[in-house]
Amino acid sequence: MKIGIIGLGNMGSPMARNLIDAGHQVTVYNRTRSRADIFAEAGASIATTPGQAAAQADIILTVVADDHALEEVVFSHDGILEALPAGGLHVGLSTISVAFARRLKDVHREYSQHYVSAPVFGRPEAAAAAKLFVIAAGEQQQVERCSGLLGVIGQKTFVVGTEPAAANLVKLIGNFLITTVLEGLAESFALARKSGVEPLKLLEVLTGTLFTAPVYQTYGKMIAAQKFEPAGFKLPLGMKDNRLVLAAAEEAAVPMPMASLVRDRFIAAMALGLSEMDWSAIALLSARNAGIDPKF
Amino acid sequence: MKIGIIGLGNMGSPMARNLIDAGHQVTVYNRTRSRADIFAEAGASIATTPGQAAAQADIILTVVADDHALEEVVFSHDGILEALPAGGLHVGLSTISVAFARRLKDVHREYSQHYVSAPVFGRPEAAAAAKLFVIAAGEQQQVERCSGLLGVIGQKTFVVGTEPAAANLVKLIGNFLITTVLEGLAESFALARKSGVEPLKLLEVLTGTLFTAPVYQTYGKMIAAQKFEPAGFKLPLGMKDNRLVLAAAEEAAVPMPMASLVRDRFIAAMALGLSEMDWSAIALLSARNAGIDPKF
Amino acid sequence: MKIGIIGLGNMGSPMARNLIDAGHQVTVYNRTRSRADIFAEAGASIATTPGQAAAQADIILTVVADDHALEEVVFSHDGILEALPAGGLHVGLSTISVAFARRLKDVHREYSQHYVSAPVFGRPEAAAAAKLFVIAAGEQQQVERCSGLLGVIGQKTFVVGTEPAAANLVKLIGNFLITTVLEGLAESFALARKSGVEPLKLLEVLTGTLFTAPVYQTYGKMIAAQKFEPAGFKLPLGMKDNRLVLAAAEEAAVPMPMASLVRDRFIAAMALGLSEMDWSAIALLSARNAGIDPKF
Amino acid sequence: MKIGIIGLGNMGSPMARNLIDAGHQVTVYNRTRSRADIFAEAGASIATTPGQAAAQADIILTVVADDHALEEVVFSHDGILEALPAGGLHVGLSTISVAFARRLKDVHREYSQHYVSAPVFGRPEAAAAAKLFVIAAGEQQQVERCSGLLGVIGQKTFVVGTEPAAANLVKLIGNFLITTVLEGLAESFALARKSGVEPLKLLEVLTGTLFTAPVYQTYGKMIAAQKFEPAGFKLPLGMKDNRLVLAAAEEAAVPMPMASLVRDRFIAAMALGLSEMDWSAIALLSARNAGIDPKF
Repeated sequence: MKIGIIGLGNMGSPMARNLIDAGHQVTVYNRTRSRADIFAEAGASIATTPGQAAAQADIILTVVADDHALEEVVFSHDGILEALPAGGLHVGLSTISVAFARRLKDVHREYSQHYVSAPVFGRPEAAAAAKLFVIAAGEQQQVERCSGLLGVIGQKTFVVGTEPAAANLVKLIGNFLITTVLEGLAESFALARKSGVEPLKLLEVLTGTLFTAPVYQTYGKMIAAQKFEPAGFKLPLGMKDNRLVLAAAEEAAVPMPMASLVRDRFIAAMALGLSEMDWSAIALLSARNAGIDPKF
Repeated sequence: MKIGIIGLGNMGSPMARNLIDAGHQVTVYNRTRSRADIFAEAGASIATTPGQAAAQADIILTVVADDHALEEVVFSHDGILEALPAGGLHVGLSTISVAFARRLKDVHREYSQHYVSAPVFGRPEAAAAAKLFVIAAGEQQQVERCSGLLGVIGQKTFVVGTEPAAANLVKLIGNFLITTVLEGLAESFALARKSGVEPLKLLEVLTGTLFTAPVYQTYGKMIAAQKFEPAGFKLPLGMKDNRLVLAAAEEAAVPMPMASLVRDRFIAAMALGLSEMDWSAIALLSARNAGIDPKF
Repeated sequence: MKIGIIGLGNMGSPMARNLIDAGHQVTVYNRTRSRADIFAEAGASIATTPGQAAAQADIILTVVADDHALEEVVFSHDGILEALPAGGLHVGLSTISVAFARRLKDVHREYSQHYVSAPVFGRPEAAAAAKLFVIAAGEQQQVERCSGLLGVIGQKTFVVGTEPAAANLVKLIGNFLITTVLEGLAESFALARKSGVEPLKLLEVLTGTLFTAPVYQTYGKMIAAQKFEPAGFKLPLGMKDNRLVLAAAEEAAVPMPMASLVRDRFIAAMALGLSEMDWSAIALLSARNAGIDPKF
Repeated sequence: MKIGIIGLGNMGSPMARNLIDAGHQVTVYNRTRSRADIFAEAGASIATTPGQAAAQADIILTVVADDHALEEVVFSHDGILEALPAGGLHVGLSTISVAFARRLKDVHREYSQHYVSAPVFGRPEAAAAAKLFVIAAGEQQQVERCSGLLGVIGQKTFVVGTEPAAANLVKLIGNFLITTVLEGLAESFALARKSGVEPLKLLEVLTGTLFTAPVYQTYGKMIAAQKFEPAGFKLPLGMKDNRLVLAAAEEAAVPMPMASLVRDRFIAAMALGLSEMDWSAIALLSARNAGIDPKF
């Protein structure tokens, strides 16, 4: 199948490689050309505009940073929308807003094209190992059409509905729940520390009993050690996803006080200059407000 | 070894049975005598006061509801304190306050006795299957002295410090983190529901990807179904533990805004008459405040 | 002086009348023409576009609903920007975002025009009685240029800085503080009611002792009586201003947990269908979550 | 009338003086004897125990720090309860818990005595000038019995119910509302400061328009200047009253999220060592979390 891939960052690059390795005929595009050129020797064609990547494709995948980046890729005059052939399918893997996912569905339909949302859970290493979890939503036929591709980049695909935006909502909920883990651990470790309980001992108990999910292990280690660099997922990105879940909740008229609390943490973290740290650095606020010297 | 056990409720009864089965010489006491009598045929001696259960014991275990109940068992004139021989060891398995654990340590020392805190994670079924997790703290020698017993009732014992109160704090932190899961899921499912995402589909994604810990599975099912009866752990008990963690945090001067948020949920749930439900029924507040008919 | 006025709603109409009565040569524009026609007999010229109202004006006043409405009035091809003569002054009285005020300053400068922000505190009755409080900010010379006009519509003008956005920020802070009064009273009356204290008795004490400001009197009465109609200021407008203060705070990296709490109240109120009520109806949430039958 | 007064601190002393000046026959008691001796030359009798002050009195007034202090004064073996003649009236002016006020009513009734709660709003200067506001509650006949006395110490008495506890609740609500003003101003000034708006200019606008109540003026000045010493009302006292209102609300099953938020501020302030400052110093938390150098 002819595939276009737009966006060769930490997530897009390993996905592209896996799709090439799986024998697909791939055209890649990246705003910074040099990241695309690497794929030439692996057999990919290099496009100079998003539209060029889409022009010949059955399926065009987009893996970019946010709504804004995707808007440019889709709507600019060299963009996907004008170039993708009628009947073509755009599969959006980026973590974008629910509202934008709805708009993409509508606008592709106007162009007799199709749109499926397929955001993923997993870090770059998981992308490289094809161990991502894919959350997909869209018309059944179109989801099936890309299910082979999604199977190449991830270990499992969950289909959560026929409206593409549903997949984006589920992804945002997942990230919201991670932030509740971050804040919960932050408060817990602040309490433990000031009460004379060894943070690593607490972590061992938590992850050895009720909280066996890797997310507690990964972030618990960082928070117990108060070490938030290098960042796996930078704080401003976490803040962006918090903003998106709150926007979706406002639109649906659902108060989410925990998400509000986390929002205030992100804002305080920005005020303190932590934007280069991992998003789990919001834990420094719990430490600071408990009078613990946070070493920063 | 001669063991006394005080408190034969849902947790104490299966523990007693396991200790008898393991060949220990057990004396039991329960306020409601009938629950104790059952153990006579299994070979246990029946005490008519807490003090009687403690009088001959090397180790006296207490498994009662709260600070108040334990205070009576220990300090009443037929209580443990007066009866336990010098050198005897009191192992407290109840979920009590950090402050009371400290007091117990001090008062037993005055009587030349010993005190170890050993609260547990796990429900009655886990107690029956000896699959509890035990969190123990106290003087090393005393913890070792009861480690065999703890090994009989649980699958694993974590020793978290030499101050008994440390174990109680860790237990309370564990329960606090469960409440953050409850509230996080409550807000998530309210958002999903109002956005047209099937709750069970969301649950499948969450527990199949990032949130594999059983706690998400167990409570996610209840919240997705909005079915909170029969109660595994009643709402007022959850509220009590929330109160205890907030008390410990206030004493240590640690603000815990998430615990405060959960506190307000518990209070609202009491106001709405949900005290017979499982503590996960705080999720009804998220539904209600989002205008979802909560069917109650 | 030749004055243009754009926006003849509940606030703009009485302002226009006061300016005409003060002898100014006034041209009015309103999207719904009929509201403008009324002013013809009072001696005003009627413009058919915003630009027409601005074309001859020394000073053009805008009194519209929000950023969006003002954007149209300013930037549309029949708008102020193209029509206002060089050296002309735009005085914006609407409650708009801090970011948009900044943009207005910049864009008017590009057109060699001037911009002053002058939002007001006060309800329509205060506007009719020329008892508004005006919060003005902008270049000193320009503020002085319009100070006579502002003196006609209000009882006092506070000049808060040379950056127009400062006035908008102060206005938003004022409205934020009103919402803290609303929520504070809501929680207080819920507690009083459930504790057997007569709400009106409580109100009498509060407003007779520490809380003599009219805002406590006005809203206290509504909340004590749980009567939120007719609306003086509709709930969605309050929600809009909450959104604007949170946006300003996010941009400035200032966490505002009370504003976040109020935001969740507004969202819940929307979920419960209270959008036609006064913004003080967020008090119904406190009643509801305390199990008080809120009669709605 | 024969009056006993117990507690001659900053509030009790000026009250005693005013009552002596009004011609009443006064017996005083203070734990630290020296503060009582001062009143001998003014014509007061000095008691050496609370009971002695109550023994001859028609009415015994108590003006002590908290529940604990009042408990000692009432229940100790030299206390009021045993000494006050049948038919005697205890008027409690201290800010105590709702629960304790209920208990006092009951226990005095058992002794055929009477109890009226009459806490006050106002600082020591207001007490000296007899400008306090008195909030009274109790049986109508008993409130009337002491209304003359209350008229001597304050400028106005509000009778809020026949249950003594009602007065204590109203007092706690008043203090709660002050804390919402503190936190509201704290967030407002943090935002203003980081946005380039002069704090004193903002204060001038707020207190000159919507927020004319003295409480905004008094605390606004302190927060604008970030100067919290000398303390008018120390932070731990504010925290105590916050604890009492939350306890009353929990008992009545009323969630008060704003009070919870303020609680977390008080705890953080204690963690940062601000206990000698005025309670308005919780504003430092808003500054800190916004990255403003709080100069402490």
